Amino acid sequence: MKKTSLHSLMTLAAAVFMSVNSFAQVVEDFKPSSANQPGKEYPMVNSEGRVRVQISAPEAKFVQLDIGAVKYDLVKDENGVWTGESAPQDEGFHYYQLNIDGASVPDPASLYYYGASRWGSGIEIPAHDQDFYALKNVPHGQVREVYYFSATNNTMRHCFIYTPPGYETELSKRYPVLYLQHGGGENEYGWPSQGRTALIMDNLIADGKARPFIIVMDNGSWTMDRPGQQRPAQGETWPPRNWAEGFMNTLVNDIIPMVDKSFRTLPDGMHRAMAGLSMGGMQTKAITLAKPNVFSYIGIFSGGSITVEDVQNTPGFRENNKLVFVSFGSRELENRRPGFGGDPREETEKLKASGMNAHFYVSPDTAHEWQSWRRSLYQFAPLLFKD
Amino acid sequence: MKKTSLHSLMTLAAAVFMSVNSFAQVVEDFKPSSANQPGKEYPMVNSEGRVRVQISAPEAKFVQLDIGAVKYDLVKDENGVWTGESAPQDEGFHYYQLNIDGASVPDPASLYYYGASRWGSGIEIPAHDQDFYALKNVPHGQVREVYYFSATNNTMRHCFIYTPPGYETELSKRYPVLYLQHGGGENEYGWPSQGRTALIMDNLIADGKARPFIIVMDNGSWTMDRPGQQRPAQGETWPPRNWAEGFMNTLVNDIIPMVDKSFRTLPDGMHRAMAGLSMGGMQTKAITLAKPNVFSYIGIFSGGSITVEDVQNTPGFRENNKLVFVSFGSRELENRRPGFGGDPREETEKLKASGMNAHFYVSPDTAHEWQSWRRSLYQFAPLLFKD
Repeated sequence: MKKTSLHSLMTLAAAVFMSVNSFAQVVEDFKPSSANQPGKEYPMVNSEGRVRVQISAPEAKFVQLDIGAVKYDLVKDENGVWTGESAPQDEGFHYYQLNIDGASVPDPASLYYYGASRWGSGIEIPAHDQDFYALKNVPHGQVREVYYFSATNNTMRHCFIYTPPGYETELSKRYPVLYLQHGGGENEYGWPSQGRTALIMDNLIADGKARPFIIVMDNGSWTMDRPGQQRPAQGETWPPRNWAEGFMNTLVNDIIPMVDKSFRTLPDGMHRAMAGLSMGGMQTKAITLAKPNVFSYIGIFSGGSITVEDVQNTPGFRENNKLVFVSFGSRELENRRPGFGGDPREETEKLKASGMNAHFYVSPDTAHEWQSWRRSLYQFAPLLFKD
Repeated sequence: MKKTSLHSLMTLAAAVFMSVNSFAQVVEDFKPSSANQPGKEYPMVNSEGRVRVQISAPEAKFVQLDIGAVKYDLVKDENGVWTGESAPQDEGFHYYQLNIDGASVPDPASLYYYGASRWGSGIEIPAHDQDFYALKNVPHGQVREVYYFSATNNTMRHCFIYTPPGYETELSKRYPVLYLQHGGGENEYGWPSQGRTALIMDNLIADGKARPFIIVMDNGSWTMDRPGQQRPAQGETWPPRNWAEGFMNTLVNDIIPMVDKSFRTLPDGMHRAMAGLSMGGMQTKAITLAKPNVFSYIGIFSGGSITVEDVQNTPGFRENNKLVFVSFGSRELENRRPGFGGDPREETEKLKASGMNAHFYVSPDTAHEWQSWRRSLYQFAPLLFKD
C-alpha cells in the first residue's frame, strides 16, 4: 500500500469515526455528579460516562466543555443557557474547564481541585468499584493540615497527614509511616482530595485488610525543594537526577524528622514506605534508591519501575527492601509513554524472579488518571508493614 | 429644605461622586494578591485597596469584575486580554466573580472559597494589622478534617477541628473547647480557610495572649440539621426559633459527645464556649440561651446581642455565664442592619452594668465581612477560659 493510499484510508476512517461520534445516540439517564457544589444540578454524568454541563451565558458567541484534551461545543437555548456533553469518559475522576468566548474558566457549578498546574473543575464518573472509596459509617481517621519550618528551603511549608482510626484513643501505640507523593502539575491536596486517601484507608482498616499506619502527603513539585529551582529545560535528560533528588533533601532532612517528632511513629527504615504517582513515582524511585536504609517499602504508580540492574547497582537495597510495587492503568500499557525505560511488567517480573518481593498491578480500563492511582493505593496498602 | 430640593441635591452629589470616581487617578503600585493561585500575577491589589483583574477572552463582547455588589467593566487590548479594576475595597478578605458575556464564573487565577452559597473567587486586601493572622515560624497547631455519624440527621457529617500546639506531645493534658460557627451562605470551610483561625490562635498562643484550646468548626446551615429543612420563607419571623434551634440538636446531641469522646477535652460547661458570625451569631444566641448549662462563654460577631431581658428570662444563665462578647464592623454600626433588636452597644453596656462580664468590640473601618470576624476572634480568644 502506497503512503498516499494509507493516508487517504486514515482520513476516511477519521471522518467515519467523527460522523459516528456526532450522531451517537446519547443515553438520557444523566444524574448530578458527586463532585458538584452543594445544591447544583449540573454537571451531570450518564451511564455511558458522558459529562453534560450547563451554564447561563446569554451574550456569549460560543461555549465549550474542555475535558480529556477535547473541546465539545455547547448549544444555546432561547434563555441564553448553554448545554452540551462529552464523549464517554473513563470511570473515576477527571479535571475539566469551560471555554467561554476564548476564556478558559472553571465551571461555577463544580467543586475545585488542583491539577494541570491550576485549581479548576473536577468531575466523578461513577465507577463499578467505587465502594472502596465511598464514605461509610465506619471508624474514621483524620487528615490534618500541618505547617512546619523547612531549613532546606528556609521557609514555612505545608502538608497533610492522615492518622488512622484509633490514633486519638490508643495513646501508647506507635505507627509505621507512608510518604505518598502527587504527580506533576499537582500538589499536596491531590491525595487527600481527589485521591480519597483517607476513605480508602478507613475502609481497608474497617475490613481488616490493612494495618493502620500514618500517611504523609507533602508537596514535591519542581520549584519547592530550593527556592528558584526550575523544571528542567527541554532536551535535558528527563527526569534529571538533581530534579528527582531535589525533593529528597526536604523529605529526608526536614519532613521525616518533623513527622517523627510530632507524631507517634515507628521511626526506622523498617517501618517507613514511600510511594508516588507519575512524577511522584519517579521521585520515589530516585529517592529510595539513593536512601535504601531510609525506606523499606516502595510503590511506583504510573511512574516507571525498578530494574534488577537498579538493585544490583545500589548497595544495601536488596537486604533492606521488603516490597517493590509497580502499577499502571491498562490504557497506559496499551499506549506506553516514553521515558520509563524497559517494559515495566517484564522488569517487575525479572525483579520478582531475582528474589525480591515485587508486585505488578494493572488498573482495568483506565489511563494516566486518578482512578488508576486510587486503585493502586487500594492494592498497595494491604501489602505494607507485614512484620 | 423641601423634599424635592433635598432629592436634587443628592442627585447632584451622586453625579459628582460618580464623575470623580470615573476619572479618579489610580495609584500604579499593584501587587499580586496573596490569595492568587501559585505563580499567577493577577489579580492584583494596590495601596488604595483597588482590585485589578486580567483574563484572556479574545471573542468576548464584555467582561466585568463583580465585587462588593458592583460590576466594573474591563477593557480589551489588541491581544484579546481584558483588564480592569474596582473602586477601593475595605482591608481584608472579599468574595468576587467575573462576568463574561453574562456568565458569572470564578476567576481562573484566584484561590476558591465558600461564601454567597457557592465556591468562588476570593481576594485579600492587605490590612494594616495583618500580622496577627500571618504565617510565622512559631509552634503550630493542626486543623483536622473529621467525619462522624449524626443520629439526629441519620447521615455522615463533616467538620474541622483545630488542636493547639502541644496537643500532640503533652498527652496527659486536657483542653477547653470553642464551638465556632460560620455565617449564612457559608459552611465549615469558612473559619479554617478565609477566617484564618489556626494562624490567629497559633500567633496568640505564641505571644502568651491566649490559653491553648480546641476549636470545632462545623456546618450550621439551614438544611443541615434535619434532611429537607429549608430556609424560612419571606415574611416569617427572622430568625425563626425553630431555624436557630435546628442546629442545636445536632450540636448538643451529636457533635459535642463526638468531640468529648475523640479529643482530650475538659467536658463540662465551664470549659465550653460557643461563638459565631452573622447567622452563626444568631444561632449562638439562641442555643446558649436555650442551654445555659452547656456553654459558659459566648461570642456574637455581627449577629445581634444578648439583652438584660434575655438574661432575666433564662433561669441559670446569669449564674453559669462567664463572658458575653459582642462585636460588629464599624460600618455595620454606621449603617445598622435591621433585625437585631436594640442598639447592640447600649444593650451590651446595660448587660455589663447589670453585673455580667460583657465586652463590646468594634472592628475599625470594616463592614459585614471577614476582616471584622478575624479581628473579633483575635479579641475574643484571650478572654476565654480564664479559670
